[in-house]
Amino acid sequence: MFKKILIANRGEIALRVIRTCKEMGIKTVAVYSTADAESLHVRFADEAVCIGPPSSAESYLKMSNIISAAEITNADAIHPGYGFLSENAKFSNLCEEHNIKFIGATGKMIDQMGDKANAKATMKAAGVPCVPGSEGIIADFAECEKLAKLTGYPVMLKASAGGGGKGMRAVYKAENLKDAWDSARHESKAAFGNNDMYMEKLIEEPRHIEIQIVGDSYGKACHLSERDCSVQRRHQKLTEETPSPFMTDELREQMGNAAVKAAEFINYEGAGTIEFLVDKHRNFYFMEMNTRIQVEHPITEEVVNYDLIREQILVAAGVPISGRNYYPQLHAIECRINAEDPYNNFRPSPGKIVTLHTPGGHGVRMDTHVYAGYTIPPNYDSMIAKLIVTAQTREEAINKMKRALDEFVIEGIKTTIPFHRQLMDHPDYVAGNYTTKFMEDFVMKA
Amino acid sequence: MFKKILIANRGEIALRVIRTCKEMGIKTVAVYSTADAESLHVRFADEAVCIGPPSSAESYLKMSNIISAAEITNADAIHPGYGFLSENAKFSNLCEEHNIKFIGATGKMIDQMGDKANAKATMKAAGVPCVPGSEGIIADFAECEKLAKLTGYPVMLKASAGGGGKGMRAVYKAENLKDAWDSARHESKAAFGNNDMYMEKLIEEPRHIEIQIVGDSYGKACHLSERDCSVQRRHQKLTEETPSPFMTDELREQMGNAAVKAAEFINYEGAGTIEFLVDKHRNFYFMEMNTRIQVEHPITEEVVNYDLIREQILVAAGVPISGRNYYPQLHAIECRINAEDPYNNFRPSPGKIVTLHTPGGHGVRMDTHVYAGYTIPPNYDSMIAKLIVTAQTREEAINKMKRALDEFVIEGIKTTIPFHRQLMDHPDYVAGNYTTKFMEDFVMKA
Repeated sequence: MFKKILIANRGEIALRVIRTCKEMGIKTVAVYSTADAESLHVRFADEAVCIGPPSSAESYLKMSNIISAAEITNADAIHPGYGFLSENAKFSNLCEEHNIKFIGATGKMIDQMGDKANAKATMKAAGVPCVPGSEGIIADFAECEKLAKLTGYPVMLKASAGGGGKGMRAVYKAENLKDAWDSARHESKAAFGNNDMYMEKLIEEPRHIEIQIVGDSYGKACHLSERDCSVQRRHQKLTEETPSPFMTDELREQMGNAAVKAAEFINYEGAGTIEFLVDKHRNFYFMEMNTRIQVEHPITEEVVNYDLIREQILVAAGVPISGRNYYPQLHAIECRINAEDPYNNFRPSPGKIVTLHTPGGHGVRMDTHVYAGYTIPPNYDSMIAKLIVTAQTREEAINKMKRALDEFVIEGIKTTIPFHRQLMDHPDYVAGNYTTKFMEDFVMKA
Repeated sequence: MFKKILIANRGEIALRVIRTCKEMGIKTVAVYSTADAESLHVRFADEAVCIGPPSSAESYLKMSNIISAAEITNADAIHPGYGFLSENAKFSNLCEEHNIKFIGATGKMIDQMGDKANAKATMKAAGVPCVPGSEGIIADFAECEKLAKLTGYPVMLKASAGGGGKGMRAVYKAENLKDAWDSARHESKAAFGNNDMYMEKLIEEPRHIEIQIVGDSYGKACHLSERDCSVQRRHQKLTEETPSPFMTDELREQMGNAAVKAAEFINYEGAGTIEFLVDKHRNFYFMEMNTRIQVEHPITEEVVNYDLIREQILVAAGVPISGRNYYPQLHAIECRINAEDPYNNFRPSPGKIVTLHTPGGHGVRMDTHVYAGYTIPPNYDSMIAKLIVTAQTREEAINKMKRALDEFVIEGIKTTIPFHRQLMDHPDYVAGNYTTKFMEDFVMKA
């Protein structure tokens, strides 16, 4: 087992990793930029090394400084957390070259899954469903017609040069294909000077549902069921839950098996997440794979009683997994508390926390690195806390989240707590009736 | 279901009850003394009524003020928490007279179980093992000899007027009985002017193990397994755990069945705890019954996933229980964090909390009413927080508690955190090898 792990991250995830290391009797090294000198991850680690000025590029992304910090402190492994260098193939390789175990995917695996086209081809080869469509540019309308029939309606025509919705047409019936083809090409030509088109199956009312997997170094993988992350704003997840209110036992079995198959196909080692889009008919399509721990991993930990960071460390140390899958016994919801003003277009609100009271009690978990008197630096991600509740049923979990949000007091900065309060009262959310489009129509009440 | 519950208590338990009420959609009324005006239970309740000056006798124990507060606010039930009026038969009756549901035992039941001799007689009648011994004063040595043989050695001779260990003799063998009888009587006469003696079986290396039960208003009861509360200082519990490291499946079955039998025998309604002494041979003896929620109830909640306050409210509202028993699936430990100086004979240390950081993460539960800036009044109990950890095994739970204690920062007052740190490292505690005598030999390291 590792003797000392350097955590190449900051904020709540650095603290999260330190917690598990302490419980496992592993020493820890924190690294920090000058903006984070007062952070708890610095205080709670056994050692701490300053790696640069506030700019991420010169500190948390500065590979040479981090490798040096590991060498100076004799750390035998590096945990990258999420973001920063967690999915950087070069950094993973650099660790290997320096005989430091990177607790995450190998450089090769990151390369394989990091490029979207590459990843899709790999998943197709593994037999995992991907969004069907043209393999590239459509030659002419005859091919377009053939393809649409093959793909199955509805389909989406997309301008190859497109963006901002221009040159895109959803087509629900064959009789409308010709008009759509002509007008999309026309629009694309006008907007981008190019009328190349490609086609994808239109995913109707898509949900973002991801499967947590863990693979070991002996080619075995298991899944820990799903997380529903459909409540997103500009592709930023705001809240997540497990089980998904849209899930069925049958679909979980199918998606879980597909995820395990995918992980084993690439000999995946460590914790990873396979993100799927799920349409209203419960067809699911591979979207991307994250070769690292996710922000929202605690909800899975709570419903299956499993420490994912511990498991990452164990498999990195060569411990085999049992191979059995894990199924939710309870219902968990996470709200990401960001230092943002939800009444002002979620504008970041860094500054000093003057008063803080965090919720507690049965079924309430707090993952945070902030405290009363802490000044949130403007340099990094605005997430300051994760509030996770767990209960027997979804209804009870929502009620618990409401009371926990009510007793969460943060003064001195704006936070997204008022947004989450309104979300937990929203009839569509309460009904479990939401897709990735949900936030497009969401308006904060005064 | 109740529409509004008044909580006749303060501190963490008042907050604890408010939390569950909120989750159940029940309105709450806080009562407070002028010393508690800044308390969180006042802030988080829907309504709050000041019931008097700091002195408990004139506020939290002042029945008329509390009943008035309930009538003014139209509360249809009162939750008494623990301590204060929670086991006061007169108050329970008073609530009934005013048509306010007392969420706890009836006056009759409290009377029945509150008097030790009464309770013991009742439990004997229910077939629950009680500490064997004389029924009253022993007439002469001949009777003493007969009784000792019947009870089985070792026995304890106790002066009826005794106290402070005077006039007490442990007798392990028949041949020593006469000497002990004579010298105890002599000592008792000298100390108290009275040489009446009674006899009890000597419980060797006793553990305090209690069984949580819940009974409904239809005469049905269930148990939720045990809590080991043997780590006590002057009869004050310091830390508790479940399962007990001393427990076997067979003993749990026996003790659980005895507790359910006892509860059903008296038609017990609500949550209650039957405290037993368990000797080194795993014989168990009824000690007393608490007809209320206990401080240490959260460890049970965590290992069986069950909200005990919710259940109290449900059975008080006439909802029947399923009747099935609950068995621990995990291991939980609670440390009571008191504003006391463990290096100075646990002397109370009230005052202002300047800095506060509470631990969090997977398997960590915090029940506390304090915050940075809060001033602990000197008028009440010194407990300021309960730190509860839950893990798969006892070893993991101890490791988790250690890391949680390490990241628990309270500045401005002295607390028992350093004591708990040393306790979690104590070889006998780690081995699960402790009895109610444990603290007698415990010395804080510098």
